[in-house]
Amino acid sequence: MKDRTLLMIPGPIEFEPAVLQALGAPTTSHVAPDFIQAFGQALERMREVWMCPSGQPFVIAGSGTLAMDIPAANMMEPGDKALVLSTGYFGERYADLLKRYGAEVTVVKAPLGESVDLNQVESILKGDSYKLMAFTHVDTSTAVRVDPKPIGTLGQQYGVLTILDGVCSVAGEEIRQEEWGIDVVLTASQKAVGVPPGLALLVVSPRGLSAWRQRKTAVHNYYADWTNWLPIMEAYEARKPSYFGTPPVNLIWALDVSLGQILHEGMEARVHRHQKLSHACKAAVDALGMVQVPTDPEWAATTLTAPYYPDGIQGQDLLPKIKESGAVLAGGLHPDIKTKYFRIGHMGATKPGDVLATVGAIEAGLHACGYTFKPGTGVAAAQHALQS
Amino acid sequence: MKDRTLLMIPGPIEFEPAVLQALGAPTTSHVAPDFIQAFGQALERMREVWMCPSGQPFVIAGSGTLAMDIPAANMMEPGDKALVLSTGYFGERYADLLKRYGAEVTVVKAPLGESVDLNQVESILKGDSYKLMAFTHVDTSTAVRVDPKPIGTLGQQYGVLTILDGVCSVAGEEIRQEEWGIDVVLTASQKAVGVPPGLALLVVSPRGLSAWRQRKTAVHNYYADWTNWLPIMEAYEARKPSYFGTPPVNLIWALDVSLGQILHEGMEARVHRHQKLSHACKAAVDALGMVQVPTDPEWAATTLTAPYYPDGIQGQDLLPKIKESGAVLAGGLHPDIKTKYFRIGHMGATKPGDVLATVGAIEAGLHACGYTFKPGTGVAAAQHALQS
Repeated sequence: MKDRTLLMIPGPIEFEPAVLQALGAPTTSHVAPDFIQAFGQALERMREVWMCPSGQPFVIAGSGTLAMDIPAANMMEPGDKALVLSTGYFGERYADLLKRYGAEVTVVKAPLGESVDLNQVESILKGDSYKLMAFTHVDTSTAVRVDPKPIGTLGQQYGVLTILDGVCSVAGEEIRQEEWGIDVVLTASQKAVGVPPGLALLVVSPRGLSAWRQRKTAVHNYYADWTNWLPIMEAYEARKPSYFGTPPVNLIWALDVSLGQILHEGMEARVHRHQKLSHACKAAVDALGMVQVPTDPEWAATTLTAPYYPDGIQGQDLLPKIKESGAVLAGGLHPDIKTKYFRIGHMGATKPGDVLATVGAIEAGLHACGYTFKPGTGVAAAQHALQS
Repeated sequence: MKDRTLLMIPGPIEFEPAVLQALGAPTTSHVAPDFIQAFGQALERMREVWMCPSGQPFVIAGSGTLAMDIPAANMMEPGDKALVLSTGYFGERYADLLKRYGAEVTVVKAPLGESVDLNQVESILKGDSYKLMAFTHVDTSTAVRVDPKPIGTLGQQYGVLTILDGVCSVAGEEIRQEEWGIDVVLTASQKAVGVPPGLALLVVSPRGLSAWRQRKTAVHNYYADWTNWLPIMEAYEARKPSYFGTPPVNLIWALDVSLGQILHEGMEARVHRHQKLSHACKAAVDALGMVQVPTDPEWAATTLTAPYYPDGIQGQDLLPKIKESGAVLAGGLHPDIKTKYFRIGHMGATKPGDVLATVGAIEAGLHACGYTFKPGTGVAAAQHALQS
């Protein structure tokens, strides 16, 4: 199993010991009073983390892809028009996925490493009648962050439902779902929410639920159908036993623990901490002479950093050497540049010392690959950013 | 969290400490070499547990309902005809679910507590052209077990795909998928497979995959689509890194541990142990004068027992008293008799002592509710069955 090498990929991440303890504790019945209490509390805590007091939270066993699938299956009907703002691999996935439910999909594709052009988005919204607009808050394949606030505003202005794919952002990047008028904010457990993989998590606005209630056809996906799950979420929150599918009991215990830790830290403090870690990692990458995939710091993600390999260095050589020096990082994912860059996740339980250890491992790896630089350049830059 | 009260519901169940330890261990990357090895090995072990050497295993994050949804979504196209053999709540669910994918569904509904009439099934198969036939091996709502072997034979004879819903049977009841000619055998992790809830598990025959390959339309469920998952399962089994959705890493580590334990026990020995535990529990229930939902021992499940409450005893009084005496049992689930019976799960890691402790708790609860019987009648009958 895992040794003490740091897991610094963009999910799964390092998890808090208390979260892992809850996960590995003997399983309770899914209708035991204390489990009902933990599940109900987790749902309430999601509203606070998502900053969406009037939203409806859903916790369903599955991966982040299921979290993307659920709102698409529930809100789209054949012939509905959807707009996807794509900043990488996961934007393309959303377009593919929406088509399965009969949507006519238009994709606004940002150039690699750039965010979307909002003027272009608005002119498209003016030109046709869309039911839904989906965007990736942080695309894990490019480390590009899209600013959700103006997209929420456009969605409200043009009467278009909005889905924020927050798989790599929720509980790490700033999100104010209700204030920003976003209809669905979805994520997976294994990223900044800080729970091992296996939970699809989403909060849906009253407008989002209303679009589902007004469907003319049944949801063409049984497992994703809110008709099955809404009464269950309502029952657990009312602290009443209920059954549709057996909930992933251990993961939900762990979720409640992690959400409690997140709220104890406080959302503003947590976002600020993530920004600090991100600045430190990016300062180190800059100081080591590596260029990042996002073309402007303004739209670089807080939750991960995606540097190109220096000229002449191959990922297949560098990543194993970084691992030998103590940190597991991720290779590229975007098909256009897959072998040219790597990815460092720094979210959830990541501490300043983890960033320093990771930068140290990167320095050691670069050195072993024959890259020339003054030892300590990266960690000094990171530490400088952490102290400022 | 859970105290030392025994969890004797029909899933989740008591789990082995080594399985819980694997679940709560620090999370690895989903492409770490040792995780790839564990995942690949778990897939190979599934083939042995399912007794289906030429089958294709799938492990996907989700509940048992997702495991039911996946083959329906992949094998059915609008207008296809499906036959559901219903012996309770989960048969009805399968019929509902198949309709979502455009199937024309015929339901053969067994009278409550009885198994299906195979002559009736055969005459229906003779009368029309069905693509698929689904049945519940053990319906958790009635504790009725259907004999899969003749259904597999009918499926081969009439060229009809067969789905065995084994949520409450796989790794507890005898299953020989390949020998019996069953196309899909599906389950969830939290029953006799012995892993906390969160995994949908299935093995598909070459004929089942071939039906999916010959589809004329795309699968109308993105998350369930084998197009996305088959290359991933093949890659892990070939011990190569791959990515579609992040696998539930901790649950898969735990699955590999549990499957290893199951194969170490041996399938024949395991089924025999489950039969012994079942006979003991049922002997105790009989001796205490309680009637079971299955109307004939021939089609009573091995993995659980479903007794009616004695006359004058209410579940809302009895179940909490049984719990106070050390065992958590489940209430009724079938809508027609929901308040009239209860359910005792005895599968996976259940030991003879657990059955005795549970029967003792039932005796104590019955006594506290004013039911008249000679103390020790139940445990003596159970022990007699265990020794025979």
